[in-house]
Amino acid sequence: MPKLTNLELIALADSFPYPTDSRYKTEAGSLYQFMSHDMNAVLGYLLPSVVDILRDLKQLFVVSDEDQRVGIAPEYDSVEKRSKMMNDLALIWRNDNKFKVLKGWRSELYPIFYPSSKLYFTLERSACPIFGLVTYGAHMIAFVPASDSQKLRMWVPRRSRTKSTYPSMLDNTVAGGIGYPYGVFDTLIKECGEEAGFDPELIKEKAKSVGNVSYYYTRTSAAGGESGFLQPEVQYCYDLEITEHSPPPQPVDGEAEEFNLWDVEKVQEELAQGNFKPNTALVTIDFFVRHGIITPENEPNYLEITSRMHRNLEHPLR
Amino acid sequence: MPKLTNLELIALADSFPYPTDSRYKTEAGSLYQFMSHDMNAVLGYLLPSVVDILRDLKQLFVVSDEDQRVGIAPEYDSVEKRSKMMNDLALIWRNDNKFKVLKGWRSELYPIFYPSSKLYFTLERSACPIFGLVTYGAHMIAFVPASDSQKLRMWVPRRSRTKSTYPSMLDNTVAGGIGYPYGVFDTLIKECGEEAGFDPELIKEKAKSVGNVSYYYTRTSAAGGESGFLQPEVQYCYDLEITEHSPPPQPVDGEAEEFNLWDVEKVQEELAQGNFKPNTALVTIDFFVRHGIITPENEPNYLEITSRMHRNLEHPLR
Repeated sequence: MPKLTNLELIALADSFPYPTDSRYKTEAGSLYQFMSHDMNAVLGYLLPSVVDILRDLKQLFVVSDEDQRVGIAPEYDSVEKRSKMMNDLALIWRNDNKFKVLKGWRSELYPIFYPSSKLYFTLERSACPIFGLVTYGAHMIAFVPASDSQKLRMWVPRRSRTKSTYPSMLDNTVAGGIGYPYGVFDTLIKECGEEAGFDPELIKEKAKSVGNVSYYYTRTSAAGGESGFLQPEVQYCYDLEITEHSPPPQPVDGEAEEFNLWDVEKVQEELAQGNFKPNTALVTIDFFVRHGIITPENEPNYLEITSRMHRNLEHPLR
Repeated sequence: MPKLTNLELIALADSFPYPTDSRYKTEAGSLYQFMSHDMNAVLGYLLPSVVDILRDLKQLFVVSDEDQRVGIAPEYDSVEKRSKMMNDLALIWRNDNKFKVLKGWRSELYPIFYPSSKLYFTLERSACPIFGLVTYGAHMIAFVPASDSQKLRMWVPRRSRTKSTYPSMLDNTVAGGIGYPYGVFDTLIKECGEEAGFDPELIKEKAKSVGNVSYYYTRTSAAGGESGFLQPEVQYCYDLEITEHSPPPQPVDGEAEEFNLWDVEKVQEELAQGNFKPNTALVTIDFFVRHGIITPENEPNYLEITSRMHRNLEHPLR
């Protein structure tokens, strides 16, 4: 297999075309906007196959073919009403085997925001891609800084071979979705314990918030379920600088099969071979940009990469 | 004066409205796109007052009022032809006192790219805002990391009171535009010597490339010359970690009047009082995000801030 460039890796995670892209018309032209109950905000994008199903639910949604929009019906005018309606529907679909993606049912609620920063409703995690809703995660890379004798090294887990999504692929040291009603850093601390056995006190003291990435993912079958659902994502990024004598991360809940302490060169090789889960490749590339490993001098597509890792999502956000 | 929030500070640098903004129609509706000679790329946006001037130059530009576009005439089909035409025109305008912004003539060429990464033409620096062209800079913040007894401290220069642009305002430790034909890091090394007296060897060894910011600035009179010109900008960011015993930066070429070693709290206070030059406030906020000083927990507008600091500029880039 030819080696993937950094830009090709970014394009695997930020896979929905931009309006200026020649693919945009064919891939985005048939999509419908999923609107808030007041029709003022675009919460996500819907595939025509989903619109056909919503069309029959006249009590719940208002479909306008003229302008390719589907709104939540105006009577769903509270967080509680919207959350109940959306989750009841997801449960019916699950029982009817309507969508393969719901086989990954998590019994975990994700928050949807509108206006920005204000909770609009909550929805079962596995149902969010059906509506193209923005979801959020916290990712951390634990690393041992470069020394006179060695390059910077990073702790890279391999996902369990039995996971339904991206089995056996490489990942960020710790990564997890931000469920309702948890905060960003609280989620990170929890995931650090569950996935890697990190002491919460170590994380509270040493994990450093370093920004976030955002991108527009088009789901493939490797994500579990149908291909083509749109999944705009924001990942809050953290660095954990440790020494080689720090207690290493350990598989705890079985999400990770093993943790490897690899130097930059080895990580770049595994990236180029396509062995990382797409969005964790993107987060790793962001780490390399922030740590002066990928620079304007050594990366010909530097600005396209940094721009696409910070895609402006045109939806209300957390 | 009420204190400025971080989001308000970002909005001073990223001041051109987004298409979803209610100001967009009034502020962007009358603008013309400045197109490449093949009419395939939007290089920038033009004010109607500039279009009226270009309209009379029928040998040089093709104005289409129907779709609000102005193209470089198709016969300018080489870098050399375009560069000569554009710079000759700027010089004529300068001699005719056509634009106040040309009073800041720099005798420094800026590179314009199209397709991305490929030189399309060069143009005198002070003329770029007339055509709304993307310009590039390199900014560095020198800092002393936090210790047990002290918070992180940063070297903050005050601009000379005699500078024509933003006199006496606060700035990043080193900041300079990237002229043709210089590279990003080469420019940084040069500016570090000229503005702050940093040893080139120190910069080569210790300055760390940490990413870039991008934003869409609408010029005010503080920038020198006319208000309203559009100035999309990319700044490549560098961190220089030093100790309190390192030789301090020194005013060399008179750009800076003094350098202050201030802790985070003092810098935040000066930011909130609007004492930083707008784009250097943005770069400072990016530094705070990357260093875990501004976090999702303490900044309610976190995602709007990080998104706007990485605005996706819809033009071909370096």
